Amino acid sequence: MTSFLLKFDLFEDIRDDLYIVEKEIEKFVQTPSALLTETSSHLLLAGGKRLRPAFALLAGKFHNYSLAKLLPLAIALETIHMATLVHDDVVDASLTRRGKPTVKAQWGDRISLHTGDYLFSKSLVLISEYSDKRISSVLAKVSVQMCQGEIQQLATAYSIDQTIRDYFYKINRKTALLISASCQLGAIAVGAPDSLVKSLSKYGHFLGMAFQITDDILDMTADELELGKPIGSDIRQGIITLPAIQALKKHGHQSRLAELLQKKEKTEEEIQEAIELIKHTGGIEYSFSIARKYLEKAKKELNNLPPVSCRETFEMMADFIYARSY
Amino acid sequence: MTSFLLKFDLFEDIRDDLYIVEKEIEKFVQTPSALLTETSSHLLLAGGKRLRPAFALLAGKFHNYSLAKLLPLAIALETIHMATLVHDDVVDASLTRRGKPTVKAQWGDRISLHTGDYLFSKSLVLISEYSDKRISSVLAKVSVQMCQGEIQQLATAYSIDQTIRDYFYKINRKTALLISASCQLGAIAVGAPDSLVKSLSKYGHFLGMAFQITDDILDMTADELELGKPIGSDIRQGIITLPAIQALKKHGHQSRLAELLQKKEKTEEEIQEAIELIKHTGGIEYSFSIARKYLEKAKKELNNLPPVSCRETFEMMADFIYARSY
Repeated sequence: MTSFLLKFDLFEDIRDDLYIVEKEIEKFVQTPSALLTETSSHLLLAGGKRLRPAFALLAGKFHNYSLAKLLPLAIALETIHMATLVHDDVVDASLTRRGKPTVKAQWGDRISLHTGDYLFSKSLVLISEYSDKRISSVLAKVSVQMCQGEIQQLATAYSIDQTIRDYFYKINRKTALLISASCQLGAIAVGAPDSLVKSLSKYGHFLGMAFQITDDILDMTADELELGKPIGSDIRQGIITLPAIQALKKHGHQSRLAELLQKKEKTEEEIQEAIELIKHTGGIEYSFSIARKYLEKAKKELNNLPPVSCRETFEMMADFIYARSY
Repeated sequence: MTSFLLKFDLFEDIRDDLYIVEKEIEKFVQTPSALLTETSSHLLLAGGKRLRPAFALLAGKFHNYSLAKLLPLAIALETIHMATLVHDDVVDASLTRRGKPTVKAQWGDRISLHTGDYLFSKSLVLISEYSDKRISSVLAKVSVQMCQGEIQQLATAYSIDQTIRDYFYKINRKTALLISASCQLGAIAVGAPDSLVKSLSKYGHFLGMAFQITDDILDMTADELELGKPIGSDIRQGIITLPAIQALKKHGHQSRLAELLQKKEKTEEEIQEAIELIKHTGGIEYSFSIARKYLEKAKKELNNLPPVSCRETFEMMADFIYARSY
């Protein structure tokens, strides 16, 4: 994934600054406690795309770019994202992420829970330094909605009575909100005018929706090694994503697919069987067409932004997500 | 516990406002999700002393008291406290708190984790409304340190190589910091001068330390029904508190007590036996004397505050904690 981004050379405009962000995050999670430093650094050192810091920096390029103004925000965004991943792994009982054992797998639920809390709290220290109240306010509201999305996902696990609308509700909270906030707050941090802030926020929303849809497609189609985690983990955990919702429409509620999706303990063969059924109904192609629509909306929104070089990067990001889902 | 407070009529000055805080918290945790509303309200409706909101309001009485200015802070403080309790129950595998099943016992680890995250995030929405950056800054730093304390508690579980200094480090983070912040931020919210803020912060620290020491004593001496949770839960979980540290000094590292405290799976009889050994060595009396010293420091700090009626309440709070530990 990272190599893919580098191949596209997407982040050329901000590569040096993104490197500084990376080094600062490494320093930032250090604590007097050896254990806490190790657990906090674990996920960070496993890699990751640093999409949220990248979006914040790129958004800043549309106005009076200043790394000093953007740095605390960029670090905080990635730290919040890592905190949610560490907590998600506790909840999902996942054992690998980014090709490495999760914090949960290595240290257990208790340590993971507090590591997630710690990372989130650390981000607040940075956020509290900004005098523009919109930054802490947006992130607080996004965090509330992210939790609501997670609870909703748990409440509807293994349920085949889910509409596409329910699915959009969840992926907006799970992914799109924080990506949208990254674009929006990057602009706010450099003092951009409201119209710019609004357009970047919309772009981030559309792109984030497409990003999660392609993530959900990849969970059924990707190469396991490349993905860094087992295939079919959504189906395993009872998370009904867009390809499954669409396939269920065709198979019906009395079908073998419906039976498999509702089953709480599934064998690997049954997960494979469900994926095959979904693939044969065109659930993947349909989901891809929805992702494409979101990407078109994202690109359209860019027309409202000044034609600086990072606008092209934002366009390429959309193309990159389009290419990624195959 | 609540009845005890009412008997003392400690909160006479702020009783009506504390009632408003209570009602506002009830409204505050409502969400469009029935499940999340239920889990979030669960602990709230189980009761509790609302000490942190009370401290914030009382601190506000030393200057230009304004409920409007204090209300978001008071709600946020209690919500942060509840969030930590919900997460602590996941980590501690506790099944009852305040005499009722925990969120974890009723809904499981996953829902509890996100309920805690949700409550914490909700508090940030309120905090972000304050224009004085000290409020979000202090709470962010306190949250970071609270997590560090929790991780330290887990890292040193079942270890008899703990000093009183280690113990103080942990109880400061576990309890004293947030009580101190409640006093400090109550004063800041009403625009009190720095000297007042500083004295209230110190008072809260000393009182919070004494409060946790008495909590740890009660875990060995209290009536189970009155406590609302099983006796000896610290020893059961390998948390080595002050009475045990002091008793170990006398019994030595090769003693039966040392053996019991290090044992990961203990019978109820063994927990009782450990408590008896601690009691016979005077570990309880010693801990009580340390709590008293902290309370004396707290009261002494009050001399730096103007002699308004709530100063007396703060004095009585210290007396109340003194009486509570028997």
